[in-house]
Amino acid sequence: MNDLKYYLGQVEQIFASEQFIAEPHELYEPIDYTLRLGGKRIRPTLLLAANALFGGDVQQTRDAALGIETFHNFTLLHDDLMDRSPLRRGKPTVYTKWGDNAAILSGDTMFALAWRYFLRQPSPRLQEILQCFNETAIEVCEGQQKDMNFEDLALGDVSIDDYMDMIRQKTAVLLAGALKIGALYAGAPAAEIEKLYAFGIHLGLAFQLQDDLLDGYGDTAVFGKKTGQDIRDNKKSYLPLLALGIANPDQRKELASLFSAKDNMDEEEKVKNVMAIYDAIGMRQAVEKGIAGEFAAAKRYLDDIHAEESLKTPLRELMATLDGRKK
Amino acid sequence: MNDLKYYLGQVEQIFASEQFIAEPHELYEPIDYTLRLGGKRIRPTLLLAANALFGGDVQQTRDAALGIETFHNFTLLHDDLMDRSPLRRGKPTVYTKWGDNAAILSGDTMFALAWRYFLRQPSPRLQEILQCFNETAIEVCEGQQKDMNFEDLALGDVSIDDYMDMIRQKTAVLLAGALKIGALYAGAPAAEIEKLYAFGIHLGLAFQLQDDLLDGYGDTAVFGKKTGQDIRDNKKSYLPLLALGIANPDQRKELASLFSAKDNMDEEEKVKNVMAIYDAIGMRQAVEKGIAGEFAAAKRYLDDIHAEESLKTPLRELMATLDGRKK
Repeated sequence: MNDLKYYLGQVEQIFASEQFIAEPHELYEPIDYTLRLGGKRIRPTLLLAANALFGGDVQQTRDAALGIETFHNFTLLHDDLMDRSPLRRGKPTVYTKWGDNAAILSGDTMFALAWRYFLRQPSPRLQEILQCFNETAIEVCEGQQKDMNFEDLALGDVSIDDYMDMIRQKTAVLLAGALKIGALYAGAPAAEIEKLYAFGIHLGLAFQLQDDLLDGYGDTAVFGKKTGQDIRDNKKSYLPLLALGIANPDQRKELASLFSAKDNMDEEEKVKNVMAIYDAIGMRQAVEKGIAGEFAAAKRYLDDIHAEESLKTPLRELMATLDGRKK
Repeated sequence: MNDLKYYLGQVEQIFASEQFIAEPHELYEPIDYTLRLGGKRIRPTLLLAANALFGGDVQQTRDAALGIETFHNFTLLHDDLMDRSPLRRGKPTVYTKWGDNAAILSGDTMFALAWRYFLRQPSPRLQEILQCFNETAIEVCEGQQKDMNFEDLALGDVSIDDYMDMIRQKTAVLLAGALKIGALYAGAPAAEIEKLYAFGIHLGLAFQLQDDLLDGYGDTAVFGKKTGQDIRDNKKSYLPLLALGIANPDQRKELASLFSAKDNMDEEEKVKNVMAIYDAIGMRQAVEKGIAGEFAAAKRYLDDIHAEESLKTPLRELMATLDGRKK
């Protein structure tokens, strides 16, 4: 029986033994840089653990694990360019280091490299696996578009349902897809894959809601970045959207006004005012309740899966790690 | 026996009957716009004709034809953004119409849509087909990077071999790949596919060299755009690179100086001076000879393919159309 640490180690080994540099080096250097930046490696870890859950082994999904993480890093690379985010994992993003065009083209190439990895991992169910990967990719793009659309809307024009639908596509389907792909390689039955997919969706939603919470209530020393960035950016995250439903009419009015403020307002003053409303209406507890609900739903689906209990250990450990995460 | 017109008509019908609009419409509108802009539709036509050459029919490759053209249009969309080209086929490009972010994300989605089309076209050789498509895609990205690298080099630092290698990857492999994929769907033997691929490479090289020639010697009224743009952009196209090897030392020096000129030089004066050197050393004839050589090589490979002669007709017609093209 292998634990979470084993699979994280396997993922590190897979990446360490892979060569990403090729010619022309102007194209492949940003790719190598991006794929070696590290990160939590959640998606390939989920893929390997889901495969093992139904009797697979690491060799059966080594390249698929590379593929799913390469795809994920491609989306981060293009997202950082679109969002003009200067830093990723504390390092300069590709567009700041090599320019916009390098970010566009290296990203495109990473999407194709993800396909190369999947195509060299044999399986009798390859077409189904590739379709799952591709439909997931399309949903991630749709989710990113919806997120960008929210930027142009007023706070009151985005519902909690709209928001949950957006983060399901932008974040959760890729975790769920990684699990499903791992299980497909192991030849798992459709009914079990369905539960595993639902587990991934709720895990992904919990993960994203945590991100939103940490932006407001993270401990800067541990979190590694300044809190309140979503507030400065007028981002329609889970916090202000949920707050609208809890706040009294005056607070609601103030929130709407703060979240439509342009550069003419002092940023730190704005963060302070928003956080004061959040504190007054108990937002921290309300969001934590929402997160706990998603983790509980994820746990129920995982419990329901017919598989050897000991093989669920890495997934339970991963869920516990994420549940307590401070960054 | 079907002629070129038949296949062009089939491609138009395939595109006319396909729905590209979906939600969120901010994502799919630029995609629909791009795919309905028209163009020569060379790649899907080659794919259908190559399939028929070995006994296939249009239904066997309908979705693959959609896939190859969707991929091609994705590369144009991102290339136009990277090159900051305001017009494509006389219409505003996606980034000018909807902004950079829409161009990035709609392009990414088109790449995934191309995969969706390929994945829904069944074949016993699907893995081989998808690998061919994907390796072609990677080469196209590499070719685009090499093209961008040339921008930062002096004229004398790019050899004709470098240039031919770049256009092989950026342009020719996609024509060759379209032919190979069509033939793979029909179950063609490897030896015939190899000749068909070589036919496509030489056809693609001829096509790109013609583009370069038309930029210098096109008839503006027919060509539809102003000639001399490559000269204004200091573009290391086939013309100046070939000219360097024909010109005398003084002309060579002048060319190198003209192609490193920055905005401080009058553009029309520069075009006039470059064209004067081209005319003096017989560049038009020299480039036409190069193009004729590629068409002749393409024809030899097509002649050598073991297939019913009448089924080669659309490919011969396409070659003849391209050979005489004035735009």
